[in-house]
Amino acid sequence: MSNRMVKLARRPTGMAKREDFTIEDGPVPEPGPGAFRVKIEYISLDPAIRGWMNDAKSYVPAIGIGEVMRSYSAGIVETSNNPAFRPGDAVQGLFGVQRYAVSDGQRVIKVDTSQAPLQRWIGGLGMPGWTAYFGLLEVGQPKAGETVVVSAAAGAVGSIVGQIAKIKGCRAVGIAGGAEKCRYVTETLGFDACVDYKGGRLAADLKAAAPKGIDVYFENVGGEILDTVLMQMNLFGRIPVCGLISAYNATSVPEGPKNLRAVLTQRLKMQGLIVFDWANRVPEAIAQLGAWHKEGKLAIREDVRDGGLDAFPDVLNLLYTGGNQGKLVLKV
Amino acid sequence: MSNRMVKLARRPTGMAKREDFTIEDGPVPEPGPGAFRVKIEYISLDPAIRGWMNDAKSYVPAIGIGEVMRSYSAGIVETSNNPAFRPGDAVQGLFGVQRYAVSDGQRVIKVDTSQAPLQRWIGGLGMPGWTAYFGLLEVGQPKAGETVVVSAAAGAVGSIVGQIAKIKGCRAVGIAGGAEKCRYVTETLGFDACVDYKGGRLAADLKAAAPKGIDVYFENVGGEILDTVLMQMNLFGRIPVCGLISAYNATSVPEGPKNLRAVLTQRLKMQGLIVFDWANRVPEAIAQLGAWHKEGKLAIREDVRDGGLDAFPDVLNLLYTGGNQGKLVLKV
Repeated sequence: MSNRMVKLARRPTGMAKREDFTIEDGPVPEPGPGAFRVKIEYISLDPAIRGWMNDAKSYVPAIGIGEVMRSYSAGIVETSNNPAFRPGDAVQGLFGVQRYAVSDGQRVIKVDTSQAPLQRWIGGLGMPGWTAYFGLLEVGQPKAGETVVVSAAAGAVGSIVGQIAKIKGCRAVGIAGGAEKCRYVTETLGFDACVDYKGGRLAADLKAAAPKGIDVYFENVGGEILDTVLMQMNLFGRIPVCGLISAYNATSVPEGPKNLRAVLTQRLKMQGLIVFDWANRVPEAIAQLGAWHKEGKLAIREDVRDGGLDAFPDVLNLLYTGGNQGKLVLKV
Repeated sequence: MSNRMVKLARRPTGMAKREDFTIEDGPVPEPGPGAFRVKIEYISLDPAIRGWMNDAKSYVPAIGIGEVMRSYSAGIVETSNNPAFRPGDAVQGLFGVQRYAVSDGQRVIKVDTSQAPLQRWIGGLGMPGWTAYFGLLEVGQPKAGETVVVSAAAGAVGSIVGQIAKIKGCRAVGIAGGAEKCRYVTETLGFDACVDYKGGRLAADLKAAAPKGIDVYFENVGGEILDTVLMQMNLFGRIPVCGLISAYNATSVPEGPKNLRAVLTQRLKMQGLIVFDWANRVPEAIAQLGAWHKEGKLAIREDVRDGGLDAFPDVLNLLYTGGNQGKLVLKV
């Protein structure tokens, strides 16, 4: 019995390559006093991971060279010296990309697998769900009757954002890449409309999908899409900036939004958000998202990939090539 | 006796030229029922005027071809059919670039020339002052001990922003063009520091002037300065976007801020503002700015230019070439 670990070997240039990682075996870690060991079953692949690999000023320290890759994951407690976590408990936390993790329980959440399968607790009911919940409601402040547009609408966060917008009485418009994703966004997720940004007529299609203009734009991608949306924002519109995935693998500093003037003339509020800022309100998000899910108002889908830890480098890149549909998860 | 008027002849490309205006004489307008006539003495030159000349979606309609140029101005009521405005009253309002204006009194403010000279009521105690007051306090939300940076710091709005920041217990840092303006900003206006952006080491100089990072950046200019400031913003910083003067005469869509990623990682709030949004609170701004001015806490300077209405095109352009120091005003 050994612990398989995916470690950062060097900082990538552009898209991460297999050579940027080392995948190695080590001893299974033993928990000390107050700690417990988790056997990890599912690894969450989130766009932010690529940013954590860069040595740049950010909201968390960069992953160090030689360190286990950082990620949310979900698993089962195997052995414990912590009375709050018992063997057999299902848990999720920042356990990293490995087979076994030891934790003292800080920021670890016990989850109920009778309510939803384990992988969903790192997806729609996990960090991506919390991000959508706080980002849309706290920063976006949508009001009934308004139009909410979200990019990466078929993704883990975007799919939840649009559904919450619908629950709050808004018109929900997604932006996604390709007809299949757009069908998923409207037919399965229930958005009012979805614009295929690969269709080559983004501005016109968006205008048709949001004829009254855009009140809230939940930003996951940046780049040209942001520029196009800026020109269709309504007065006093809000732009929660959750991600800028179009730039995460950039090898030079990307161009910024040319249409920033709209922020001034339309009195827009553009505000960055990181879910960690609402850490003390996570139970509220879990309770509300869980309730909506149970009531059938919130569809949640995972895109679970096999291949084990060795597949991590390839599966990670699916996020940046648009290869996933729904929350991307790696089965260990 | 005739009315001299500066009208928009055509929409400028780049900097406005004399040929973009017609300067002509017409009959002196007679006020109808409920209206009054003002003899204008001072014309306010504000960066926004250039934007009003473009046929683009904005916060107010564009000035029409053949219409009198829009501007704030100050003058004396000559004849009145409105009991609220008597001959001899000093007033300010959007009277336009002309010798005489007729008004029904809407959004016209009576001013006290015993408290401050007439031209100051279209400067530090007028629209630029209100903009600084609401923009900094309502959007910027500065807290004592924080660092406030303002660009165009020697200008009409910037000069007031930094002084209010000082009054509120903040460190005030200006950005201005040239050693003379910077001296004015620190010595006369009392900012803690001023960075000369023409010095060629903006990032390093700003770092030295704001060693604890930047909590509020009051944006008047856009472009490279915004990009540099973005990299030095503190967590949860606020960026009131009041102006983007670097782009007002652009003949192609300018590049946007490359460092938008800082909005996300530092959870910045970037918010556009137009002073008209606080129209119903203007009396509060006037009272507070006037009180600070009287107490000697708020230095206000006008840069009054002679030459009459015929000089308007040339004087306007001083705003965009950095040729003014303090509030730019044209004496009719």
